[in-house]
Amino acid sequence: MLSRTARRLVADVPAIAAAHFEAEADPYHATDNPGGHVNLGTADNRLVWDLLAPRLAHAGPPRASDCQYGPLHGTPELRAAVAALLGPRWNTAIDPDDLVVVSGATAALDVLATALCDPGEAIVVPAPYYAAFDTDLAGRSGARLIPAPMDETTGYALDPEVVGRVLKRARGDGVAVRALAITSPSNPVGHVHPGPVLREVLRVAREHDVDVIADEIYAHSVFGADPFVSMLDPAVSGDHAHRVHGIWGFAKDFGLPGLKVGVLHTRDPDVRAAARALAYFAPVSTQTQATLTRLLDDALWVRDFLYESRRRLGRSYASAAALLADGGIPHVEADGGFSIWIDLSGRLPDPTPEGEHELWRRIFHSARVNVLPGAVFGCPRPGWFRLCHATDAGTVAAGVVRLARVMGETT
Amino acid sequence: MLSRTARRLVADVPAIAAAHFEAEADPYHATDNPGGHVNLGTADNRLVWDLLAPRLAHAGPPRASDCQYGPLHGTPELRAAVAALLGPRWNTAIDPDDLVVVSGATAALDVLATALCDPGEAIVVPAPYYAAFDTDLAGRSGARLIPAPMDETTGYALDPEVVGRVLKRARGDGVAVRALAITSPSNPVGHVHPGPVLREVLRVAREHDVDVIADEIYAHSVFGADPFVSMLDPAVSGDHAHRVHGIWGFAKDFGLPGLKVGVLHTRDPDVRAAARALAYFAPVSTQTQATLTRLLDDALWVRDFLYESRRRLGRSYASAAALLADGGIPHVEADGGFSIWIDLSGRLPDPTPEGEHELWRRIFHSARVNVLPGAVFGCPRPGWFRLCHATDAGTVAAGVVRLARVMGETT
Repeated sequence: MLSRTARRLVADVPAIAAAHFEAEADPYHATDNPGGHVNLGTADNRLVWDLLAPRLAHAGPPRASDCQYGPLHGTPELRAAVAALLGPRWNTAIDPDDLVVVSGATAALDVLATALCDPGEAIVVPAPYYAAFDTDLAGRSGARLIPAPMDETTGYALDPEVVGRVLKRARGDGVAVRALAITSPSNPVGHVHPGPVLREVLRVAREHDVDVIADEIYAHSVFGADPFVSMLDPAVSGDHAHRVHGIWGFAKDFGLPGLKVGVLHTRDPDVRAAARALAYFAPVSTQTQATLTRLLDDALWVRDFLYESRRRLGRSYASAAALLADGGIPHVEADGGFSIWIDLSGRLPDPTPEGEHELWRRIFHSARVNVLPGAVFGCPRPGWFRLCHATDAGTVAAGVVRLARVMGETT
Repeated sequence: MLSRTARRLVADVPAIAAAHFEAEADPYHATDNPGGHVNLGTADNRLVWDLLAPRLAHAGPPRASDCQYGPLHGTPELRAAVAALLGPRWNTAIDPDDLVVVSGATAALDVLATALCDPGEAIVVPAPYYAAFDTDLAGRSGARLIPAPMDETTGYALDPEVVGRVLKRARGDGVAVRALAITSPSNPVGHVHPGPVLREVLRVAREHDVDVIADEIYAHSVFGADPFVSMLDPAVSGDHAHRVHGIWGFAKDFGLPGLKVGVLHTRDPDVRAAARALAYFAPVSTQTQATLTRLLDDALWVRDFLYESRRRLGRSYASAAALLADGGIPHVEADGGFSIWIDLSGRLPDPTPEGEHELWRRIFHSARVNVLPGAVFGCPRPGWFRLCHATDAGTVAAGVVRLARVMGETT
């Protein structure tokens, strides 16, 4: 018989992973497989491989030192390179010793949740929230998530007052809340949170004595007019800086999701010691660490790559947004990330979670478009879906056309 | 404040990892650093890099498909290649779908322990046992280890009767024992367990209704006269086959410890589902999986590599054993693995754990030789140490000379 932890995990198969592999097994192609699945469900940056391939080839084959034991929380070389990359973006000097490298951002989130929470303790998440938080933050750690529902009328903008209210109510109910977890830019909505809003959220976290898990894995994938502001920026975190733990990785900003390299930053010596101990169970191949160290070792290449990636993401977003408008599909304006938060509530058979699931089934099975429903993001109102646009424009267009047709159909 | 799990892990820093990095920071070199640390503490195969380097270079730079999301329990290509490698060695057909690939054998052991045990439940281990079992099997899972003390007079040979007695006593004490964990070839002793002994151990496991964790990470590193027999061999596992879960990895047999690729095999569908769910938190870089798939894709190269590796290990062992004999240091005869179990009890200031620790301190700090003391392997009698010989012969000789001097010194 399985352990309780195992039974809980087996019961909660991550929806994102399952839909992704089903859609990828029979992918749409304009000429070769026009009836295939259009996968707009996976937050994958497929716009930059042409830039990466020559640079990765340049790194050359693995050397002996790339294949030997390294410190299990990341090689000093990779941590130094990541510190140099993230410091300017986070607007604060990063000590490489405050970084812990683990096998994916999922593992980094799991490490933080496990370090901070005993089973049954809680993490508050503004909703809609990154769907995999259910597994990443709560799956192994045994923590539980408490959504703080944002308001549809503001396009689900981050609202510090709601966060404060949920924290207060949870404490009133006797729940031990240990952390607040926020994605910035937000996933799924695509907002870059303004500095004053983040400042106020961190003030609320401090007031309620909770740590902050700042998931900034899209930190370099910002293309809107407003500048990105990090939760680790001292002007934002202020007195609470040692309680703000940053998450980053190579999956999104560098379009290398298979490499499973996540990074965690903390200035709390206890959390750092715990994270290093937990990293023992999820280390990264030294080969891959060496490859990424060499990827980052030319600052000019990195600057140009990130600039071009942002430019392509901005174009991809603008093109998808225009198609959605043409198709009569409302969406929230995005400043960053790979996704668009679209409103299909006008087509719900019923304004209920069941109605949303019914619509999702029609879209996935009949229209063969993979867009994830609001339910998996804990969205407070049914009918919203996440559409990922960072893939080739023809595929995105085919998906939007199919969605527009669903929206126009009489049921 | 940290969670209970985190506090427990921080308190238990793995001794192997700490001593390794201290010794590696100032390594012995015959001419450049003759006073440096002789690291014979790490079970590392440093005899085969010349064979690996050209083959790894042959794999070429990463392709786009090597960097995208793959199934988180291992790519189908790598699982098929590993199944083809292990099937003949385990003398049973391996279904690649029964394999789960995770970031290191540590992670594979943690996954199994977490799948099988609730916190506080127990795993019985014949002692002396692989030192990292304390962390790997018990650290995150919260399981606890119960050593079954083997007998010094037989050279700590695996004794099914003692295993049965410990299982019976634990149950009598009301402890829920969920598994038995055995290394084969044994680490630290280096025994290849005879088929009839393994059969009897598995009969005992069946009688007591416990699963078996068969850690066969050294399965191809056998150089003695007796053939390796796997616990997964149907002639051994018999009726208990679905309760025997195998562990393997690339760290030892292929001398690639930095790549952190562990493999778990199970035919129990519940354990497999749990292992796949847990693999989500410790996936392996798709780049490294592609590299290893290409490493294995030439069966002739693999056969020749393993043959030559075994030959070099056998020579390295024979040379170290002869030096030990010359130095008056008794040891248990080994058939496989990278280590020799040596008896320094003649030099203990006291025949106690404290005496052993005192001797270890002298060896590590004064003689500057890193060999791990029996205490970290749960050895029933003080004074035994593990010496790893799979590195260049000059370094091993320098280490044995220093040990012999310690043995000859008056205290």
